[in-house]
Amino acid sequence: MRRVRFRNPAGSIQTGEWNDEGIHFGGRTYDPESVDVLPPTEPSKIVCIGLNYVDHAHEVDMEIPDRPMMFLKPPNALAGHGDTITLPRGKERVDYEAELGVVIGEQCKNVAEADAMDVVGGYTCVNDISNRDDQEVEQNWVRGKAFDNSAPIGPVVVPPEDVADDARVRLRLNGEEKQNSSLSEFIFSVPELVAEVSRYLTLERGDVIITGTPPGVGPLTDGDTVEVDIEGIGTLRNEVRGE
Amino acid sequence: MRRVRFRNPAGSIQTGEWNDEGIHFGGRTYDPESVDVLPPTEPSKIVCIGLNYVDHAHEVDMEIPDRPMMFLKPPNALAGHGDTITLPRGKERVDYEAELGVVIGEQCKNVAEADAMDVVGGYTCVNDISNRDDQEVEQNWVRGKAFDNSAPIGPVVVPPEDVADDARVRLRLNGEEKQNSSLSEFIFSVPELVAEVSRYLTLERGDVIITGTPPGVGPLTDGDTVEVDIEGIGTLRNEVRGE
Repeated sequence: MRRVRFRNPAGSIQTGEWNDEGIHFGGRTYDPESVDVLPPTEPSKIVCIGLNYVDHAHEVDMEIPDRPMMFLKPPNALAGHGDTITLPRGKERVDYEAELGVVIGEQCKNVAEADAMDVVGGYTCVNDISNRDDQEVEQNWVRGKAFDNSAPIGPVVVPPEDVADDARVRLRLNGEEKQNSSLSEFIFSVPELVAEVSRYLTLERGDVIITGTPPGVGPLTDGDTVEVDIEGIGTLRNEVRGE
Repeated sequence: MRRVRFRNPAGSIQTGEWNDEGIHFGGRTYDPESVDVLPPTEPSKIVCIGLNYVDHAHEVDMEIPDRPMMFLKPPNALAGHGDTITLPRGKERVDYEAELGVVIGEQCKNVAEADAMDVVGGYTCVNDISNRDDQEVEQNWVRGKAFDNSAPIGPVVVPPEDVADDARVRLRLNGEEKQNSSLSEFIFSVPELVAEVSRYLTLERGDVIITGTPPGVGPLTDGDTVEVDIEGIGTLRNEVRGE
């Protein structure tokens, strides 16, 4: 079941199933090109994890952290599959970062690792767009990471069992592969992340934890097409424009 | 007009006016002790400003920053006037910080300083509760600043014109004054903050910008009563318990 949230031609917001024949809801089938695909969840917050791939830690010559590094994106950061991403004005370097998104299925706090998958509603694709000009000089990455449309997400949410522990995570820029790694490179597993985040913050139904990016991050420029592709989920595609 | 959001004895959530006679809504007057006072706004995010008082910068021997330092608290951080604040488990030092909260009145982006007061809906009191154990070792202050009930807010929102440019900002711990400064010590004014934040993030109606704390921060412990008192607004009071 690949759940998609969309606005149908009449303007109604619906949550349907997206399969090879189209998007299905209420006995109707829609051509995906005829609807607006929306972010598949409406989080109250996006909790983001830094440096969570062994291969990426080696790439940037960083030590393996002893606990997850966290930062936050607020709801204004969301963008949907197919939406045009506007880069923040006047910045030299704004990067893509392909990430697995963990969508929380029920409100929870202080979740034990052993119970963590019970509160996971599904997985999706996220692009953690990052304004390096500011990120490199800020204590907290607000200008760097929390700006509008810095978190394209989707197109669908799938059950966790549809995504293998060694699923490939890929990013393509204008059709050329730039990132290609595996979830098996995770330093902290999804249950470890849910347990650690929920020790401090109540997670609400619909909230998203994004799980860090593999090696190969690089810059976006006006006119680019960027795709995050996770095996078992699908492809999140966005166009990019400079402001 | 001191606007208060509350849950009346029948369980309905209402927004009324709080004056000397009580809380008024729909032709009825409630004894403030008979209702649950709620956070006076439902923000999608709380944008927090660090180091924004000249006297506090001198106290901690920090240079005056050349632009506002920002961090984020998500909605799970909210708590209301009269609510009991639970300190995060197993931490040595969790501090109070009295702050002016700026409540946004309409959705906005890229607001010019000259127009900023047009998008300000009002002012309130906030206590920016801070877990120093983690804040001191994190890049981004998530464990340190974004944990549950780390942002008590209220009890009322008042129009900006009710708060003088040199209004006193005070904090009392168990009745003893610990912070006492003036909004005239601001490094960045409210219009400067609204302009800078909205350059990066769309501000939604109800969002809150908290404006930094004056000198005198210190620790909270189990059993404390903590009050933030801003001239022209009123007093935000919370009890504290260890977990």
